[in-house]
Amino acid sequence: MLKGRIIFSMDEEIPQHVLLKISGYFHGIKIGYPLLLRKGIDGVKEILRKLEINEIIMDLKLADIDNTMINIVKQLDFANSFIAHSFIGIDGALGELKNFLDNNGKKLYLLASMSHKGWNDDFYPYIKTVIKSLNPYGIVAPATKPNVIRIVRDDFPDKIIISPGVGAQGGKIGDALCNGADYEIIGRTIYTSSDPENKVKEIIKIQEEKINECKKTST
Amino acid sequence: MLKGRIIFSMDEEIPQHVLLKISGYFHGIKIGYPLLLRKGIDGVKEILRKLEINEIIMDLKLADIDNTMINIVKQLDFANSFIAHSFIGIDGALGELKNFLDNNGKKLYLLASMSHKGWNDDFYPYIKTVIKSLNPYGIVAPATKPNVIRIVRDDFPDKIIISPGVGAQGGKIGDALCNGADYEIIGRTIYTSSDPENKVKEIIKIQEEKINECKKTST
Repeated sequence: MLKGRIIFSMDEEIPQHVLLKISGYFHGIKIGYPLLLRKGIDGVKEILRKLEINEIIMDLKLADIDNTMINIVKQLDFANSFIAHSFIGIDGALGELKNFLDNNGKKLYLLASMSHKGWNDDFYPYIKTVIKSLNPYGIVAPATKPNVIRIVRDDFPDKIIISPGVGAQGGKIGDALCNGADYEIIGRTIYTSSDPENKVKEIIKIQEEKINECKKTST
Repeated sequence: MLKGRIIFSMDEEIPQHVLLKISGYFHGIKIGYPLLLRKGIDGVKEILRKLEINEIIMDLKLADIDNTMINIVKQLDFANSFIAHSFIGIDGALGELKNFLDNNGKKLYLLASMSHKGWNDDFYPYIKTVIKSLNPYGIVAPATKPNVIRIVRDDFPDKIIISPGVGAQGGKIGDALCNGADYEIIGRTIYTSSDPENKVKEIIKIQEEKINECKKTST
């Protein structure tokens, strides 16, 4: 099955037969506290058990001291990757978390920016130094801010960039990819569709078309 | 029973008979994701059911977009208060969270700073503008940084200030109170003691002595 450059954001439980049908099209699934609290750890494991996806990303926006973050990720060993806030800094926080994840074969994504209006991008120079110094597996940059994705791609040519804010939050499908993201994080657009499988196929087609278009423009 | 200026930080489950014996001495209990994930929402409710405390504070270091944070706090309606990160900003994040909490009789605490070394206090001027503009119930400022507590108390004379980092992380009992905090958040010092009830009484005594001392010094 052809996989799209899609990370499926599952904030709500969707029927198991629908999920089974569409999960093959996704590179990964992103899960946050809303679903984790509602279903519990065992409930989430059960939902994920039968799916064939490459990466399970826990989007907990980790932003605490080292001990607390490590205590949290230890309990979620079914996941491959964790998203944390760059803003909290390294010593006594992200540094120790990164070591723990490295030693346990897990990946760290750091937030470069967020999609909502109130996020202050004046602090990006500081965030950039944190990311440079920590060398995480990937970076999160929002589809709602194409210029931010381009800057992050310029600053970190070799990092995986994943991009939320596509669809319901305003980003258009494929645009984040054209601006330098590797995967688009899409949720509501898929699970609120009356025909999720067709919707996913449509998204993959749009992503391919957009990528082909922007390849042409850039050469 | 005499209540100390203590918020008990419960990161691990402690035996119910011990908790029943000591909880009367606490103003509040602070619970984070480590215990919440381990016990689940119903498990935490069960632990709290018989306790006589004034305030249950969920220390989730909320740092996400509005929808996600509101989805989380909605599920935790047994709590009185929630701690969030100031740095995520207001529009599309803290503003909507604050409205939701206000409308549901819940309190918001905002972080002014954190206790670990890597936290960058250069951003306090920005954080201060966020707190001023949002007018939360209370503020979190670490016992490990007495000068930060004094600045926050100066900037926000009427706000409740709660102070973590007492004990295991290095802050001395009573010092945060002398510097302007209203409550000290204490965990490990109590639950790793061989006699938690006596430990709590000892802490309350030290708090009172320190407060009397610093009252003398400041007059």
